[in-house]
Amino acid sequence: MRFTKMQGLGNDYVYLDCTKETPGNLPGLAVRLSDRHFGVGSDGLICIFPSRRADFRMRMFNADGSEGEMCGNGIRCVGKYVYEKGLANRTELTVETLAGVKRLTLHARDGAVETVTVDMGEPAPAPPRTLTVRGREWEVIPISVGNPHIVTYLTGVDGLELAALGPEFERHPAFPERTNTEFVEVVSPDRLKMRVWERGSGETLACGTGACAVLCASALSGRSGRAATVQLRGGDLDIRWDIADNHIYMTGPAVTVFEGQFN
Amino acid sequence: MRFTKMQGLGNDYVYLDCTKETPGNLPGLAVRLSDRHFGVGSDGLICIFPSRRADFRMRMFNADGSEGEMCGNGIRCVGKYVYEKGLANRTELTVETLAGVKRLTLHARDGAVETVTVDMGEPAPAPPRTLTVRGREWEVIPISVGNPHIVTYLTGVDGLELAALGPEFERHPAFPERTNTEFVEVVSPDRLKMRVWERGSGETLACGTGACAVLCASALSGRSGRAATVQLRGGDLDIRWDIADNHIYMTGPAVTVFEGQFN
Repeated sequence: MRFTKMQGLGNDYVYLDCTKETPGNLPGLAVRLSDRHFGVGSDGLICIFPSRRADFRMRMFNADGSEGEMCGNGIRCVGKYVYEKGLANRTELTVETLAGVKRLTLHARDGAVETVTVDMGEPAPAPPRTLTVRGREWEVIPISVGNPHIVTYLTGVDGLELAALGPEFERHPAFPERTNTEFVEVVSPDRLKMRVWERGSGETLACGTGACAVLCASALSGRSGRAATVQLRGGDLDIRWDIADNHIYMTGPAVTVFEGQFN
Repeated sequence: MRFTKMQGLGNDYVYLDCTKETPGNLPGLAVRLSDRHFGVGSDGLICIFPSRRADFRMRMFNADGSEGEMCGNGIRCVGKYVYEKGLANRTELTVETLAGVKRLTLHARDGAVETVTVDMGEPAPAPPRTLTVRGREWEVIPISVGNPHIVTYLTGVDGLELAALGPEFERHPAFPERTNTEFVEVVSPDRLKMRVWERGSGETLACGTGACAVLCASALSGRSGRAATVQLRGGDLDIRWDIADNHIYMTGPAVTVFEGQFN
């Protein structure tokens, strides 16, 4: 079986072309391929299918075999994949996901896609509130970007003891469905540095929806403009909250690491 | 650049054929390839060269770019690699390492190498001694198998809090050069279950020299015969301490995970 290993901000998946044929038992395949010592090693498996509603359909499976709705870092790589493999010849594409049809704009040079812009849709912010965590009061801004986030601000985000703090935010009684939390340091009005604690995953290198929530919260609270570079551990994303259509546009890298053949 | 990803008991390396040409800066390449999110992902890089002293020479680089002397799980995969790639057509081979020339016996079926036996040389056991760790007395058997080990016995090795105990054994003042420690449960005289705390690495899935030290200590203390299956977290090794030549022979699996092409 031929596959391509790709990553966006270090969020790495095995990509399979399922436009002609599809292997059986994709959840089981995801578990086997994702193992970092006995398999290819990845955060999961992304399969690219034809779609009746869009140019392509992506299905993503996490390393435990569960199916995910959408992944901002993954969908950028899907755009690069279909363009560079000749499955698509336009730089404006639609991709069907379990979270709806997403629009991509590919930024290509000499046939190679370097970055991809994803229309992440409209954010749903809620009023700020105060949480008590570890005896300290934290002002947080709740924002849904398809999935739930809370954004909080501090200085010295690099030194934050996230392994201790993260679980207390994730399981805070104010959020019975649990939440993703972004800890943000404002470097300047157009540069925001963040670390993310993802619901169910802990600290990760990058979270696309989290970066969108951060830009939205920062713009609403006057900490940034409507466009900024969000600096994550895995790299940078450019986020823009469009004033005309109220959509958030995320632009970031998509990288092919290697081509592989698995028996 | 073409490469092969192989593993032995989950100890996984990127393998390169350097018999015709060699890329520059192998330590830097090892760091880049080993990264599990931005690179191929591995415990390190193993390069196969011609040798004047043996059939082949292997050089292994850890994920941090440092050069290792030898790796029992890695050298088994070297044997499988050279045989299946047609670089060797015999099942008895010698491989030069920084720890000397090692002899391999390949066990092949229909052209595929399933397991490999490695002559690990003569062990150097020392008398048992007692250490105090965390207020408890532990009887340990020190054994050198090229590198230093201590072996200790207990029941319920699965439930052992190795993350807390391991560092105290590693840095115990009795071993100023620091030591690898094996914690062993005797399942039967021909089956030993172990967990290993490796000097500088912490708990790992498998340690070939550690398994050899365990068999040697168990045979010396009457807990096992001179041959036993040693069960590690990453899989099983068959270890035999030959009565005629005093060498330890380790037999275990070598697995090709995938073939890759890296740009």
